[in-house]
Amino acid sequence: MSVKIAVLGHGVVGSGVAELFYKNKKSIEKHSGCEMDIKYILDLRDFPDAPYCDKFTKNFDDILNDDEITVVAECMGGVEPAFTFVKACLDKGKSVATSNKELVAAKGDILLASAREHSCNFFFEASVGGAIPIIRPLHRCLAANDIDRTVGILNGTTNFILTKMFVDNMPFDEALKLAQNLGYAEKDPTADVEGHDACRKICILSSLIFGRHVYPESVYTKGISDIQLCDVSIADTFGHSMKLVASVKRLDDGRILPAVMPTLISRDNIMAEVNDVFNAVMVYADGIDKAMFYGRGAGKLPTASAVLGDVIEAAKHKVTVFSQTWEPSDNNDFVAPIDEYSSKWYFRVLSSTKLDMEGTYENECGISFVSDTEMTFAEARSKASELNALAIYPVIE
Amino acid sequence: MSVKIAVLGHGVVGSGVAELFYKNKKSIEKHSGCEMDIKYILDLRDFPDAPYCDKFTKNFDDILNDDEITVVAECMGGVEPAFTFVKACLDKGKSVATSNKELVAAKGDILLASAREHSCNFFFEASVGGAIPIIRPLHRCLAANDIDRTVGILNGTTNFILTKMFVDNMPFDEALKLAQNLGYAEKDPTADVEGHDACRKICILSSLIFGRHVYPESVYTKGISDIQLCDVSIADTFGHSMKLVASVKRLDDGRILPAVMPTLISRDNIMAEVNDVFNAVMVYADGIDKAMFYGRGAGKLPTASAVLGDVIEAAKHKVTVFSQTWEPSDNNDFVAPIDEYSSKWYFRVLSSTKLDMEGTYENECGISFVSDTEMTFAEARSKASELNALAIYPVIE
Repeated sequence: MSVKIAVLGHGVVGSGVAELFYKNKKSIEKHSGCEMDIKYILDLRDFPDAPYCDKFTKNFDDILNDDEITVVAECMGGVEPAFTFVKACLDKGKSVATSNKELVAAKGDILLASAREHSCNFFFEASVGGAIPIIRPLHRCLAANDIDRTVGILNGTTNFILTKMFVDNMPFDEALKLAQNLGYAEKDPTADVEGHDACRKICILSSLIFGRHVYPESVYTKGISDIQLCDVSIADTFGHSMKLVASVKRLDDGRILPAVMPTLISRDNIMAEVNDVFNAVMVYADGIDKAMFYGRGAGKLPTASAVLGDVIEAAKHKVTVFSQTWEPSDNNDFVAPIDEYSSKWYFRVLSSTKLDMEGTYENECGISFVSDTEMTFAEARSKASELNALAIYPVIE
Repeated sequence: MSVKIAVLGHGVVGSGVAELFYKNKKSIEKHSGCEMDIKYILDLRDFPDAPYCDKFTKNFDDILNDDEITVVAECMGGVEPAFTFVKACLDKGKSVATSNKELVAAKGDILLASAREHSCNFFFEASVGGAIPIIRPLHRCLAANDIDRTVGILNGTTNFILTKMFVDNMPFDEALKLAQNLGYAEKDPTADVEGHDACRKICILSSLIFGRHVYPESVYTKGISDIQLCDVSIADTFGHSMKLVASVKRLDDGRILPAVMPTLISRDNIMAEVNDVFNAVMVYADGIDKAMFYGRGAGKLPTASAVLGDVIEAAKHKVTVFSQTWEPSDNNDFVAPIDEYSSKWYFRVLSSTKLDMEGTYENECGISFVSDTEMTFAEARSKASELNALAIYPVIE
């Protein structure tokens, strides 16, 4: 039996999928237990000099109507037309592997339901953490665990910028420009810098872990554009690194609280050492205590590796893998409001503020301290307002 | 359909398997897609006060001859009688999940062949890295990659001892005693301290990655009992941590070179920050560049989590998973001799030795330096002999 694949999109990830597939075709077929080949590559652009140029098509119907195609790799990005194409494939019983976090975060529940209904699979390992195996380990290897919390550094661009600020004392604007020059950041860096990309990824992890779709709109998301160089250097003084953290935890009443916020992480926590464009996810659960998954969160071949891992799985499994799925949620009453987010907090206040406490640190940006005890975000904001604080960030030990 | 499980052994891991299974039974069954229950627990000892005491048996034949038992969790440890029991189960088509690294390293090829022959599965996620998902991510999520190197901190006991030496400046003997008091080290600590445990684990990873059984006897293994406190503190001065590293890489000619050696790891490498009883495995491959898996390498519930992940997988998959397998190897001519191991090296020589070079460091134990260039172990030993060196260790950036 031979499995025929279609790749939607020949951008960075899509071209990586073709490249890595043909480089390792022999061992990929050994893993899948069957012959495999790419039959179509869909792209509206012309690639006259590309290898496999005989496989290109501009017409999605060529793929949809070819019954030989049983597995589709979607690497176009964006919600449309990706959603329409992916849904059409699933509705015809073609399994889909995607790298498209925007699509999964917005429409995962609908696509998973389509896959169930038509006895095929919708896989999305590449949508979170790039090369890092996290989706499959979460729902398979850790299947015996009750997972109650996950902390992730899920955006490589912001982690690169914060690393430059931390290690090289480089101001934010300069670090962003460097990231753009190196191809780590888009011309319009909003999605990365303002935390939207990390938000989509924590929505996907939250949905998978807790079994109901979490929509990006319901997740408090704060990016890194307000962070001052002095906050990063003070974090260092306190023995912490500053990271953009996307996290989710289950509260005692069963609701969950996902959030994206710049966060101080103690250097006793290995997450503090995740630098440059690398990503990591720490999973907390009753059986394992904690486990971390670390690797490249983006890039051509790393993301292609994850897409192909799913393509191989889809080629092997003709029937729906039920454990990797979640239910739709009409309203998000199981997502608690950010006011309830409980943590220790870092405060930076004006130098003229009178503080009657130990453990403060003063530099040109103001006086900083970390609260002794945990308090909710609502309480922290109220204290911040009392103190005329210039900045507050949560602190993780 | 209901899947009936037998657990062989009610020691630390076996009792953890029963405990975690009943704690999370509902979600475990959701993951497996079928009802599951433990029908037998095999142990020669009496546990009159244990929960599930109605399930205990001292007679292995009760399990072997009960056709209702389709999945067996082997948590006895040691090669015999585990090998005889596991082989008998596989020969009857019962899938087995084991935490027993000694068994897998010694007899994995034979047991995998039995599983293939009788269309069942022999799973061993728990045998390497305890709670850390590594076996399944390696052969499934990274299936599109050509993996050419793996570096592991695979023994929690030695990592705890080295962390104590490094962080608290505690001498080896004292750190070992503390590890014993805390239950991290056995009364006879040889298997851990001399590297045999790490050796078994790198054999399993090497066999899985490169497809042929690598036997412990063919792997150069040096433990940590010779390490001086001054080596650890000098490593620190050079910006490195001292770790017991179990590694394997593929040479240009296709042979592989596994080894277990105390190694200096640069603190720019996140592996240097893996402390206490934690384990980690860094995998290098063409698609992903590198990815690290980190977590608790031992312990009751962490190991039980990995065993149960396999039990769930076995309950779902009635047919052999061919990608998680390797071939027997009659001779180990594909394992290169340790003399060919190439690296930069750390040397410590007598203070009276005359060294005409920069970058040396002197303390009460002697003069230390790291070689500028890579050289083979044979070359390093020859240089060490020339210099009357007191210690040499490889260095990883």
